[in-house]
Amino acid sequence: MTTEHEQDPVHCAISDALSVLGDRWSLLVVRDVLRGINRFDSLQDSLHIARNILAQRLASLEEAGVLVKSPIKPNGKRMCYNPTPKCLGLIPVLVSLIDWTANWSSEEQKRWAKVIDKTTGEEVKIGIVDNNNNPIPMSQLSIQF
Amino acid sequence: MTTEHEQDPVHCAISDALSVLGDRWSLLVVRDVLRGINRFDSLQDSLHIARNILAQRLASLEEAGVLVKSPIKPNGKRMCYNPTPKCLGLIPVLVSLIDWTANWSSEEQKRWAKVIDKTTGEEVKIGIVDNNNNPIPMSQLSIQF
Repeated sequence: MTTEHEQDPVHCAISDALSVLGDRWSLLVVRDVLRGINRFDSLQDSLHIARNILAQRLASLEEAGVLVKSPIKPNGKRMCYNPTPKCLGLIPVLVSLIDWTANWSSEEQKRWAKVIDKTTGEEVKIGIVDNNNNPIPMSQLSIQF
Repeated sequence: MTTEHEQDPVHCAISDALSVLGDRWSLLVVRDVLRGINRFDSLQDSLHIARNILAQRLASLEEAGVLVKSPIKPNGKRMCYNPTPKCLGLIPVLVSLIDWTANWSSEEQKRWAKVIDKTTGEEVKIGIVDNNNNPIPMSQLSIQF
């Protein structure tokens, strides 16, 4: 695997992450589970996608360790999907997507996803910082392999 | 548009961003342009995708204001693609995807995308903070509309 990856110019941490997240639906499922929508029918109501697509995305997120499936009632047949710590680890991805749209979308936004601190109710922000926690302007950054 | 969006339970800042970014290829094109690969043939060599797919992704990123196309030489026919400030604004998305894979991938990584501060050469990090710039643990966050 490593040898194959070393020869594969696409492979990097970003492509690895995108191969798990797959497409836009996976991140929207993550968004909804993180805001407490955790049953199949409720997710379908929220996302308006075909049941087979939703089932595929839930199965691949479960396989990737992002969601965990468990019965709603002990020994019941109906299942719910809950976020794992690996799923919580995607919050910075969601916050950075929210910030990007907030900063660059020309459309007036009436309806806005927010990430808040549950203990204070305040919206959080994301920053790129150096080892001394000083913010760094985007123009000063570059990407390297 | 606004009325339609208000009735659309999928629509939010996250889905808006994903509708521009479209699929994994768009973010990988952004990654490569940000590391200085900015000609069509070089991007194709790096990404190993079909020319028509790459042309589509470049056109939609140009239309979204993420890339700007210009001749390599004045009045020349060969074009290159350069990042706009809106493209630089995607760096936090890339950094958060890199961090997520670094924290959660079980595979040993030999080859790793890094975002560095050009002035120091140091790798940067991303953090979720409150208004006083104090870091907030992921478990303390929730997503709301």
